[in-house]
Amino acid sequence: MSTERHYEREFVRTFFTSPTAVEGEDDSAKMLRSAAGLRGMQAPDTWIPDNEDATAPSMRDEGVENIVDVVAEHGAAFPGEIHPRVVWHRDDPSTRYAGFRMMLEIADPENGAVDHIDGFVIPEVGDIDDWKKADEFFTIVENEHGLEEGSLSMSVIVESGEAELAMGDLRKEMGRPSNNLERLFMLVDGEVDYTKDMRAMTPTGSLPPWPELRHNTSRGASAADLVAVDGPYDDIRDVEGYHERMVDNRAKGMIGIWSLTPGQVVEANRSPLPPKTGSWLLEVDGEDVELEAVDGKQVYDGDEVELDALGDDRYELEVGDDEMELDADGLREELLALTSYVPSMDDIVDSMEEFEAAKEAGKGAIAMTQSATLVIDGVEIDISKDRMWDEATYQAAQTPIALFQDVYEHRPDQHEELEEMYGADVVERATSVGN
Amino acid sequence: MSTERHYEREFVRTFFTSPTAVEGEDDSAKMLRSAAGLRGMQAPDTWIPDNEDATAPSMRDEGVENIVDVVAEHGAAFPGEIHPRVVWHRDDPSTRYAGFRMMLEIADPENGAVDHIDGFVIPEVGDIDDWKKADEFFTIVENEHGLEEGSLSMSVIVESGEAELAMGDLRKEMGRPSNNLERLFMLVDGEVDYTKDMRAMTPTGSLPPWPELRHNTSRGASAADLVAVDGPYDDIRDVEGYHERMVDNRAKGMIGIWSLTPGQVVEANRSPLPPKTGSWLLEVDGEDVELEAVDGKQVYDGDEVELDALGDDRYELEVGDDEMELDADGLREELLALTSYVPSMDDIVDSMEEFEAAKEAGKGAIAMTQSATLVIDGVEIDISKDRMWDEATYQAAQTPIALFQDVYEHRPDQHEELEEMYGADVVERATSVGN
Amino acid sequence: MSTERHYEREFVRTFFTSPTAVEGEDDSAKMLRSAAGLRGMQAPDTWIPDNEDATAPSMRDEGVENIVDVVAEHGAAFPGEIHPRVVWHRDDPSTRYAGFRMMLEIADPENGAVDHIDGFVIPEVGDIDDWKKADEFFTIVENEHGLEEGSLSMSVIVESGEAELAMGDLRKEMGRPSNNLERLFMLVDGEVDYTKDMRAMTPTGSLPPWPELRHNTSRGASAADLVAVDGPYDDIRDVEGYHERMVDNRAKGMIGIWSLTPGQVVEANRSPLPPKTGSWLLEVDGEDVELEAVDGKQVYDGDEVELDALGDDRYELEVGDDEMELDADGLREELLALTSYVPSMDDIVDSMEEFEAAKEAGKGAIAMTQSATLVIDGVEIDISKDRMWDEATYQAAQTPIALFQDVYEHRPDQHEELEEMYGADVVERATSVGN
Repeated sequence: MSTERHYEREFVRTFFTSPTAVEGEDDSAKMLRSAAGLRGMQAPDTWIPDNEDATAPSMRDEGVENIVDVVAEHGAAFPGEIHPRVVWHRDDPSTRYAGFRMMLEIADPENGAVDHIDGFVIPEVGDIDDWKKADEFFTIVENEHGLEEGSLSMSVIVESGEAELAMGDLRKEMGRPSNNLERLFMLVDGEVDYTKDMRAMTPTGSLPPWPELRHNTSRGASAADLVAVDGPYDDIRDVEGYHERMVDNRAKGMIGIWSLTPGQVVEANRSPLPPKTGSWLLEVDGEDVELEAVDGKQVYDGDEVELDALGDDRYELEVGDDEMELDADGLREELLALTSYVPSMDDIVDSMEEFEAAKEAGKGAIAMTQSATLVIDGVEIDISKDRMWDEATYQAAQTPIALFQDVYEHRPDQHEELEEMYGADVVERATSVGN
Repeated sequence: MSTERHYEREFVRTFFTSPTAVEGEDDSAKMLRSAAGLRGMQAPDTWIPDNEDATAPSMRDEGVENIVDVVAEHGAAFPGEIHPRVVWHRDDPSTRYAGFRMMLEIADPENGAVDHIDGFVIPEVGDIDDWKKADEFFTIVENEHGLEEGSLSMSVIVESGEAELAMGDLRKEMGRPSNNLERLFMLVDGEVDYTKDMRAMTPTGSLPPWPELRHNTSRGASAADLVAVDGPYDDIRDVEGYHERMVDNRAKGMIGIWSLTPGQVVEANRSPLPPKTGSWLLEVDGEDVELEAVDGKQVYDGDEVELDALGDDRYELEVGDDEMELDADGLREELLALTSYVPSMDDIVDSMEEFEAAKEAGKGAIAMTQSATLVIDGVEIDISKDRMWDEATYQAAQTPIALFQDVYEHRPDQHEELEEMYGADVVERATSVGN
Repeated sequence: MSTERHYEREFVRTFFTSPTAVEGEDDSAKMLRSAAGLRGMQAPDTWIPDNEDATAPSMRDEGVENIVDVVAEHGAAFPGEIHPRVVWHRDDPSTRYAGFRMMLEIADPENGAVDHIDGFVIPEVGDIDDWKKADEFFTIVENEHGLEEGSLSMSVIVESGEAELAMGDLRKEMGRPSNNLERLFMLVDGEVDYTKDMRAMTPTGSLPPWPELRHNTSRGASAADLVAVDGPYDDIRDVEGYHERMVDNRAKGMIGIWSLTPGQVVEANRSPLPPKTGSWLLEVDGEDVELEAVDGKQVYDGDEVELDALGDDRYELEVGDDEMELDADGLREELLALTSYVPSMDDIVDSMEEFEAAKEAGKGAIAMTQSATLVIDGVEIDISKDRMWDEATYQAAQTPIALFQDVYEHRPDQHEELEEMYGADVVERATSVGN
């Protein structure tokens, strides 16, 4: 059996939760209604009416009704997938039974919502046998309501050590005849409860970064053809921190992230897409600093790297504690080692097209060149960076393009914004390259 | 079956080893005797008379006698648990048999020590089948001596790749009818031998940090309801390094650590407890620097962050290579992003009590505010940080409180020092909150 | 069964790939021929005629012929092991069948190459059942050609999440009667395709560092007595980066690395061997900076650490934001904490010999002292560092020595260069210590 994903969306950028019933409002479904109205970059790839932690326990019966009402009315028009979260706990059968009844009610065809429900999200799962209990309830719900077996997808929140371990067993468990685990879709980290379950502590009470958990989730998703999604980023005002987390996640193969607000949805929908324009980075004190493009030149205006032109083809370059006297070629070599280039969508498409043409002409590799004029302390120097593109580079570059194409195919409501971002021409070429 | 720990201590802060027999001393049990006399913060949560690496092979027979003698005489009064370490090796049956005979002798009721022996520590275990061999010897020892099956706990030192992998199987192996692995208690990393087994090398000969091993140990402990303990920190004089390691461990959910001296025991007993007073941190060059509290103000006196009051509600803030001109509100926002607060025990108890009261009054979340006057380059600015407390925050905050309560319940010999540390009032409230 | 490696080489420093057939050359086997002629430090421990990614698909039939020709002619004289890479893919049976036919042809005794073929490298493996399919083809190849079962070793490229997970199962699968997985030899990470399989992305298109993958590969190798090898380091000109990666790998127990050029082979053959001369490191801003040895003194000439002699046994030391006034003893203590020593091969052999002598005399531990005169801002201060050597330190120090001895035994072609590096006396002592 080849490694292919079994569901419609190959990528999920955003996982947006809404409380299902808020006390003290005229309309307890207010938050659901406003989420259901989101469109374009504000609308998530997956929307999670959250009948668990985001909703007070006393409001959850009403939450079920609200989900049914709002999804029945607005589900058809909603541009993303809809996956309500129900209650569940590996250690508590009454919670599990409550979760089952929620699913049974929401999925009842008489209530008119199920046609727009793509699946359910199960929190607080334990080891693989616990996942199977949830899967069995899905099967019963489908059977009772005359739905096709396996048609409701199941996503889980990984928030315990045993669930983390279970992700290593998915591949061998998913094919077994006595379960329908092929319905699995998203593996979502839930770092708040995971931290509690692991009994971890930090001095300030902030969440630990849990790099190994995120690796294991991404690997589990990769091995079982699922989609990996990171948990909530609490500090809603810290946009930079949210972006850094997403960059770190993508380097782990985890492209999706939880969003708590429509503002975070916009950030998380845009973040994994290649930038409109390329940019140059300079490594300063172990970190990459983006250079400022001024009149087509790349300007560094910090103090950590210093450059002097001594005349007569001699330069003095100071990087941290390191002082070097160099000629222009030596300087170029040092700066090449310190700089890197972030390609734009246009650059990526260009390179892929050139490589495709070269391959057709029987060539296995081509060199792509990127040139810039750097300005450091007023001194200008031209550099140019070669990069070999072979089949492997080409394949690796396809991930952002495949993501873009997946978005373009499934999110027509974002076409306009994508064209504004990139221009119609780049969008057109990006949708057809690599196919 | 719910996730509950099966042993008395839910937390272990300290794992203190003593040589069992030292050659060339009048009394070869001298080290054991002095360890047995430790009380209060100097006494560990678990004391390990070490009849393996800490004791010369030629002295280990005498070591067994010494353990029996000292524990029989002083065990009843010792405030921590007692877990002798015997010899074992996954690759050597004669070592395993020697370990079995040590256990058989130490646990012999005729020797009078076993009533004060909580379990044994097995080093150098291999894969799960090797753990079962050790477990079987415990069962035989219990049976031969008329002890209740499962009454002796088993802790292991993880110092091989196969033992690291075995931790992923514990949860499913522990319930099987043909073993008594429910006796497992501590999973202890042994980085010296692990480094050898992994054939790792560092230029200076220092130990690699092994973050993945520590994660996997903590996760294994979490999934199987065990207690995770980190290995020895060799550089006894490097108190700061020992603390940093413990902070890093706690962010992984690994709260216990090996201690080689009573001085390290004191540090490791205190380190996981919340501080007496709160403090403010400023992020400087990627690291958190603790501000100095002077007359109730929080003073930064380094050079990496610079602040100028330009007058007329204008400020210039310089952070590394970044220069910003801001008004007071903008400055506050920047500083809020750079600062964090380390709550005191008192703060944590306060917040929990407030949240409990709010919950009783039907509220799901409250905002806790922390205010400070920062002083940078002589310029003063007031900031205040809000933090939302909801059920999840409350649950997460319970880890340090649960630890404190576990210590308070099982270590009456530390009550006096805890009251000196925090004051009787805070101790009193901390022991009752959350129950 | 004791934990022992089943193959000849215990260590592999270098894994060097060559294209098997290059189009447009007079002799398509040119690259193979020149690789086959490498000797000494330029010759790898394992040479991989690469009939997969390094060779165009249209040239791979010719590649098989070239391998056979070149290995038949030059294999006997080649100083390293020879492991051709054939095609394979977990998701594609026709690729797997093509790989089988390549092996069948290359191993045909009538072609005269198989006597010099140590094994084959299988790329793109999936879960453990996929590894077994490859193993079965080895068995059939051996049987068809009258070779001893298990005589051809199998190495795999780990470039998928499922292969990463499979490494956790090797130990229990390798003993089973229905496979010959004991033939396994190297576990090699392939980060380019792994990145694609995990769908990871970085802004610049550079490879993510994948620390967890490398840990898991090293652990898998350790648990199943195999050899761990890291993947290719693309930026051939970045020698410093290649070295840093190797240092990081060795701290994970991964001693081998892919080499793309004879230049990289030299670097990777030398890098894991202890240095000729020891050196001192000073921790500056979180990083270790090597001090310059001038007239037997260790000089720091950067700006980040400042030292002033105030006279009257008073010194002012400034480290980052930290200013301290100290007497000479206090200064020494601070500097001891900031410095570390990288022992030379000679130092390691000395310490091991001294410890062996002490052990014979009945002592369990000795203190080894390392002294230096530091010079900071012209101020001189003598420090001396003690390090306790006990059995564990001794054992850990054996990894580089065991590596050296393995190299010395199996690579006579490198003897001359090793003697040039270290001097004949040190080489002589290093080959006999610890046995």
